[in-house]
Amino acid sequence: MMPESPIRKLVPYAEAAKGRGVNVYHLNIGQPDIETPEVALNAIRNFDQKVVAYSHSAGILSYREKLVGYYKKHDIHITADDIIIGAGASEAILFAMNSCMDAGDEIIIPEPFYANYNGFAVNAGVKVVPIPSDIETGFALPPISEFEKVIGPKTKAIMVCNPNNPTGYLYSREELETLKTIALKHDLYLFADEVYREFCYDGKKHISVMHLDGLDDNVILIDSVSKRYSACGVRIGCMISKNKELMATAMKFAQARLSPPTFGQVAAEAAIETPDSYFVEVLEEYLARRNVVVEAINKMKDAFCPNPLGAFYVVAKLPIDDSDKFCQWLLEDFAYNNETVMLAPATGFYATKGRGLDEVRISYVLNTNDLKASMKCLEEALKVYPGKTN
Amino acid sequence: MMPESPIRKLVPYAEAAKGRGVNVYHLNIGQPDIETPEVALNAIRNFDQKVVAYSHSAGILSYREKLVGYYKKHDIHITADDIIIGAGASEAILFAMNSCMDAGDEIIIPEPFYANYNGFAVNAGVKVVPIPSDIETGFALPPISEFEKVIGPKTKAIMVCNPNNPTGYLYSREELETLKTIALKHDLYLFADEVYREFCYDGKKHISVMHLDGLDDNVILIDSVSKRYSACGVRIGCMISKNKELMATAMKFAQARLSPPTFGQVAAEAAIETPDSYFVEVLEEYLARRNVVVEAINKMKDAFCPNPLGAFYVVAKLPIDDSDKFCQWLLEDFAYNNETVMLAPATGFYATKGRGLDEVRISYVLNTNDLKASMKCLEEALKVYPGKTN
Repeated sequence: MMPESPIRKLVPYAEAAKGRGVNVYHLNIGQPDIETPEVALNAIRNFDQKVVAYSHSAGILSYREKLVGYYKKHDIHITADDIIIGAGASEAILFAMNSCMDAGDEIIIPEPFYANYNGFAVNAGVKVVPIPSDIETGFALPPISEFEKVIGPKTKAIMVCNPNNPTGYLYSREELETLKTIALKHDLYLFADEVYREFCYDGKKHISVMHLDGLDDNVILIDSVSKRYSACGVRIGCMISKNKELMATAMKFAQARLSPPTFGQVAAEAAIETPDSYFVEVLEEYLARRNVVVEAINKMKDAFCPNPLGAFYVVAKLPIDDSDKFCQWLLEDFAYNNETVMLAPATGFYATKGRGLDEVRISYVLNTNDLKASMKCLEEALKVYPGKTN
Repeated sequence: MMPESPIRKLVPYAEAAKGRGVNVYHLNIGQPDIETPEVALNAIRNFDQKVVAYSHSAGILSYREKLVGYYKKHDIHITADDIIIGAGASEAILFAMNSCMDAGDEIIIPEPFYANYNGFAVNAGVKVVPIPSDIETGFALPPISEFEKVIGPKTKAIMVCNPNNPTGYLYSREELETLKTIALKHDLYLFADEVYREFCYDGKKHISVMHLDGLDDNVILIDSVSKRYSACGVRIGCMISKNKELMATAMKFAQARLSPPTFGQVAAEAAIETPDSYFVEVLEEYLARRNVVVEAINKMKDAFCPNPLGAFYVVAKLPIDDSDKFCQWLLEDFAYNNETVMLAPATGFYATKGRGLDEVRISYVLNTNDLKASMKCLEEALKVYPGKTN
C-alpha cells in the first residue's frame, strides 16, 4: 500500500488557518523561493522547433553530452551513455529500483530518510529496511554493525541521500569508504541521491559515490536539476551508472515510457551555463538562513538541532509529546501575532514506528526575515503547547 | 522482465542503411510530422514565472479546469477532481494500473495491442491476458465468449485503445456496450486509451467509454496531448475517473512523484485554444495519407489491409514468412532506387507467440509523396523478398 505522507495530512489544516486569516510560514516543503537562472528560462522563451517531438528515451544527446562536462567539473568522469534522463529524480529512482531489484528484494536506508523513497519502493515492489541514525550524532552514518545486522539474502542495495534530506547531513569520505566496503563485501548496489550536491556550507566539499574507486559496477548516482537551479517544475533528473548491463535494463524501462519531457530538457541543458556567481549568491543566502534557524532552535528551551553542512533542511528535537499532533496544533489552535508555522513531522521520515515523535523537519526555503518570524512563532508555541514535555 | 521491442531491435539496421547512403522512410513510429499548434508554442515562449515550481500533484488547477471544457465539447462530463495529469499517458497508465491492481492481477487486452502496455504491466506487476482480434474482421472487438474464456478470480480489468494503435480500428457503440456488459457482470475496471479521439475518418464519430451510462465506478479514461496536438515531447497525459476511492489511491502515486512537468502543462493548457481549423486541416491530411496506404497495399499481390476508421496506423497482411525477418531484410538487404522503408513487425503487438508473423504495422506519419514512394518500395520488396510465401 502507498503510505500517506504526514505532511499531506496537514494541508487541510493549513488551508483552514489561512481561511481564518492567519499567516502561515511554509517550512514544510522543499520548494525554494530562489529564482530559476535566467539562462534556463531564456532557452524556453527562445524555443524555435516547429514540432515538440519525442526525444531519445535516454534524453536529448546534446544535453547528456553537456552533463558530462558538468560532472567533470565535479570530478565525476562519465560518458553520455552512462546517463538516462528521467522525469525528475523520482522517475530515475524508479528506473534504478526496477532495474536492479525484483519484487520482495530489500534496500537498506539509514533513517530518517526522504519519505518519497517509500512510495518508489512500493511502486517497485521493494522493501525498505531502515537502520537508525540519530540526532545525537548529527545523523552520521550508522556503524557497519547496524548494516550487518540487517543484511540478508534479499538485500540488494543500500541507499543514501548526500547531502541529506531531511537531516542536512553531509557524509564524509570515511563514511563513503565504509559504504564501499559493505557494498563490495556483500555485492550490493549503492544508490546515492546527490541532488543537493551544490548546497554545502562552512567550506565543506561534497564527496560523491562516483569518487570511490573500484565501485563502478555497484554505484548508481541519482540526480536532479530541481534544487540545483530552483527548477522543481521542469521535472528533469537522471540516473547515472557505469554498469552497462544495469543501464541496458534501465533503458527498457525508459523506452517503455518513450521519452523525458522535451521543454524541461531544453531548460536544463541551458542551465548548465548558469554562471558560478549564481551559486555563490544562492549559497550565501542559504547559509544565512541555516544560521538563523540553527541559532534560534538551539536558544529555545529544551530544543536542539545539529548544525547541518548541506542541503536546506534541519531536523530539530523539540520538547513535545508527538510531532504529528504538534504540527497539527500549530495550524489548528495556535497563532502568535496572527502568524504560525507549518513544519514537517519527522515521523514521516522514519520507517520505524515510534521514532521521530519529538522531532520536526524545517526547510529553510524562506528569506531570513520570514525565518526569524517563523522561529519566534515556534519559540512561543513551545511555551504554550499542551503536549510539551518540559 | 521488461520485453525488448521488435522495433527497437531494428534501429541499428536502419542506422547502418543510412550509413550506406540509403534513404529510409520511417513508417515505424507514431511521431507525426504535423506542426504543434502555434498557440501552444507561444505560451511557452511567453512563460513569465520567475521560479519553475512544482505544480499540484494532480496537475495545475487552471489546466484541469480548462480540460473540463475540452471534454464537455466531446460530450464527456467531468470535474477537475476527476483528472490526474501524468507525464504522458505512460505515467497515467502506470498510476491507473498501480491503483486498481495488485501484483499478479490480470488485465485482458484484445491483441494486437500497443506494445508499451507490456512495459507498464511489468512495471505494475500485472499480467496481460490477450484475447484475439483478427485482420479478417478488421480487428473488431472479440466476441463476449472470448472474454468469458479467460476471466478468472485474478481478472481485474479490461483495456482497449480506441481508436486503436496499432490497427486504426474504431470501436462502435455496440462494441462499447458489450464491454460495459462484461465489466458490470464481472465487476471489472474498463481502461480506455483514447489518445487518438480526434483522428476519425469517413464521417465516423468517436464514442468514448465515458459516454456509457451506469459505469462511473468502472471506467478509467487514459488520454494524452501527444498525438492530438502533435506534441509528443511535452509529456502530458492524464487519467480520468469518477471513482473517488480509486482517484484517492492514484493521488498517492501522483504525490510520490511530486508533480507533472510544468512547461508541458503550460503548453497543453494553451493548446486547448487551438482553432478547429487546425484539426480540419490535420484530418484532411491524415485521410489522404490513409487512402494512399490502404489503396497501395490492397493493390499489391497477396497483400491486404482493412480500411481503418481512426488513428494513423494500418496493420497489413503480407505474403511473408516472418515479419521480424522481413523488416530487418528491408533495412539490411533491400533498396529500390536507393530507398527503403522501416516498418514495425506486427509480432511486437501480439502477446501470443506466433501471431503477427505475416503482418506489419504502418504509421502514416509522412506526407503523401513520401508515402507513395514508400509503398512503391514495399511493392518492389515483396517481389524479391527471399522469404515470400506467394
